[in-house]
Amino acid sequence: QLLKSLCVLALFVATLALDNGLMRTPPMGWLAWERFRCDIDCQNDPKNCISEVLFRDMADRLAEDGWRELGYVYVNIDDCWASKDRDSNGRLQADPKRFPSGIPNLASYIHDRGLKLGIYGDMGTLTCGGYPGTPLDKITIDAQTFADWKVDMLKFDGCYSNATEQEQGYPAMSKALNATGRPIGYSCSWPAYQGGLPPKVNYTQLGEICNLWRNYGDIEDSWNSVLSIADWFFNNQDVLQPAAGPGRWNDPDMLVVGDFGLSMDQSRSQMALWAIMAAPLFMSNDLRTISSGARTILQNKVAIGINQDPMGVQGRRLIKEKSGIEVFWRPLSDKASALVFFSRRTDMPYRYQASLGQLNYTTGSYKIYDVFAEREMPTLKDSTNFVVSINPSGVVMWYISAPADQDENTHIGGKLRGPAFHRHANGISPIVL
Amino acid sequence: QLLKSLCVLALFVATLALDNGLMRTPPMGWLAWERFRCDIDCQNDPKNCISEVLFRDMADRLAEDGWRELGYVYVNIDDCWASKDRDSNGRLQADPKRFPSGIPNLASYIHDRGLKLGIYGDMGTLTCGGYPGTPLDKITIDAQTFADWKVDMLKFDGCYSNATEQEQGYPAMSKALNATGRPIGYSCSWPAYQGGLPPKVNYTQLGEICNLWRNYGDIEDSWNSVLSIADWFFNNQDVLQPAAGPGRWNDPDMLVVGDFGLSMDQSRSQMALWAIMAAPLFMSNDLRTISSGARTILQNKVAIGINQDPMGVQGRRLIKEKSGIEVFWRPLSDKASALVFFSRRTDMPYRYQASLGQLNYTTGSYKIYDVFAEREMPTLKDSTNFVVSINPSGVVMWYISAPADQDENTHIGGKLRGPAFHRHANGISPIVL
Repeated sequence: QLLKSLCVLALFVATLALDNGLMRTPPMGWLAWERFRCDIDCQNDPKNCISEVLFRDMADRLAEDGWRELGYVYVNIDDCWASKDRDSNGRLQADPKRFPSGIPNLASYIHDRGLKLGIYGDMGTLTCGGYPGTPLDKITIDAQTFADWKVDMLKFDGCYSNATEQEQGYPAMSKALNATGRPIGYSCSWPAYQGGLPPKVNYTQLGEICNLWRNYGDIEDSWNSVLSIADWFFNNQDVLQPAAGPGRWNDPDMLVVGDFGLSMDQSRSQMALWAIMAAPLFMSNDLRTISSGARTILQNKVAIGINQDPMGVQGRRLIKEKSGIEVFWRPLSDKASALVFFSRRTDMPYRYQASLGQLNYTTGSYKIYDVFAEREMPTLKDSTNFVVSINPSGVVMWYISAPADQDENTHIGGKLRGPAFHRHANGISPIVL
Repeated sequence: QLLKSLCVLALFVATLALDNGLMRTPPMGWLAWERFRCDIDCQNDPKNCISEVLFRDMADRLAEDGWRELGYVYVNIDDCWASKDRDSNGRLQADPKRFPSGIPNLASYIHDRGLKLGIYGDMGTLTCGGYPGTPLDKITIDAQTFADWKVDMLKFDGCYSNATEQEQGYPAMSKALNATGRPIGYSCSWPAYQGGLPPKVNYTQLGEICNLWRNYGDIEDSWNSVLSIADWFFNNQDVLQPAAGPGRWNDPDMLVVGDFGLSMDQSRSQMALWAIMAAPLFMSNDLRTISSGARTILQNKVAIGINQDPMGVQGRRLIKEKSGIEVFWRPLSDKASALVFFSRRTDMPYRYQASLGQLNYTTGSYKIYDVFAEREMPTLKDSTNFVVSINPSGVVMWYISAPADQDENTHIGGKLRGPAFHRHANGISPIVL
């Protein structure tokens, strides 16, 4: 009955989403900005500058290193790709020195590898980096250009425009993209420019015109940045959580896992919280040199499965303890769910005691899978007290199957029956009493 | 002539240091506090609680995993080791449940492995954790107890005492330790309780009574904490730098490399800055489960060599750029030196351009060894412009030999002639133009 209600709800929700049929689960892929910024110095920094070489390199890595099969399919260009001048027909064009083969060729290269290409534009006179923007009178032509180039997604930034222009421009670009006939995922930076909250931001409207939207400031390569973003999203969850659903997602910005500023525990925390938030998973890192530790976290199948749950319900923070422990929860398909235990402490692993009953779970016996320790835990009754050891700035993440007395056969695939109880030396294994 | 002056300076300096002949280079080892705190729950957390098991485990690791040979020889107990009551003779005693074999047995165990034992006391009525302190009238008996137990070092905290008592107690303990006849390294928390700066703190006096002293607050397992400590020490370097020398060291607190809060780049930054500061290198981590990445950083022989330079001159911050780049320098024996390029940025690797001449190096041609990339760099003239690529919250650290035109044969041992120019995938290799 609960399941039926949820399905009806999901169907209802679907009718409100942008009608391009895209991104029924949060989009996944790679986006250049956080890691490579506006580095256009191809003379001195040829491997890292914004050029077709960089995007082909990343496409190769996504296709060859196991990312594509896990769902990471978008290769997304950000700012600073364009020539400073439009062409003689008034169309945007790529910088000829850095993209000598042109965007259509890059799109082919990417499509040939089973991937999708994203591009960047700006609702305004200039992009944030000072390249040609898309003012109101250029929306139709730019949408058509992107479609002609066989682009699969557009991130539409909002520098150099005012609130009135944005109110016209963001819906207009949505219509213009649809009018091209090519399915193009549409990411709107609009709410981030309007403070991210009602009444200035209308999340009902956003769900009807955009597939995803940036609500808040840009992420940086630091734990402070990740934490401040997570805090803002969960502090405002009553507004933001209902806005998300299949085809329409809140976007807390890129994954910085694999860069320079996060520890392994902090990397697991970003992955876990982004999964709970049903956030788009756009990595911004160097896939050519990523460490095996970071790759293991980003390629965690159960964490990705939770992020990509087809029901598409965004999760919430349940508890904020004085001890610095917070508990997050997300309902999943098949009466399953995910829990994340997170520590804001900076001293040592904290032994947090709770029971599933205290976390609003109904009577029953639950199968638990520890997502990052990659092992099944002993079955847990709702009334049983357990202790999880949570590292400073780290998480313990559980995938929790439907209670056994309701449905004996619910699993998240055979993976869950993998090697149980092998020891991990990194101390992330929780202890269940 | 410069070398001669420095040697004379070093000899002069030596006469001011505490006359126990100990710690002519910064002490190295392991200290329980940051990682294990006051965990006394041996029932539920037997492997991590403050007990003789923990210290024996760490002694085993120091002796068997290559730490001892590098100089990490102290195994240091911190707070919460003691029984809440003194014995019938008024002497401190270890908690009988957690240290059933007693401290003298633990000292034997540690000495048998070629290591040294440190213990913790508090100038005041109670320790910070509420265990028996060492008020003025107990200084003689407690010093004698530690000597009888064959303890090699004392960290003397300052909770539950006022400035007047500290002014009496810290010198009194120094005398009492000397009077036992046993060489006991003496770490004073006194300046940290008096704000760390003159006129409240007298660094000349500290150098005469203590081997090392805590100037500032406790470190935590976070990059914010490491950064705030480094900032305080370098912001106050005009006061602090001259206070250090062989036998008397400023102590910015433990290394948290190998714990949960620092990325690999941040870990290299702590190691590099602590080496520049001639800081004691007390790790506080779990040596039983430390990652190979963290171990590699902590066991870096050239970084340790810089830290342990026999001349014992503390380094300084040379430059603080608006770009967020900072440059640190330490003069070393044999006319060598160390440079650290550090980035406070949170975006992407920054290409910093400079020349040795701009960094106050005299005319000449210098051999450079990149400490963390572990490779020799092309020889650099003082006038040559170079570019180093510095990761966000990361460092590039150079060991710089004496200029070739002054002394052709100065090296930091054969290690420097190791495999040159092998590629590192982690992007820490600087590029020299």
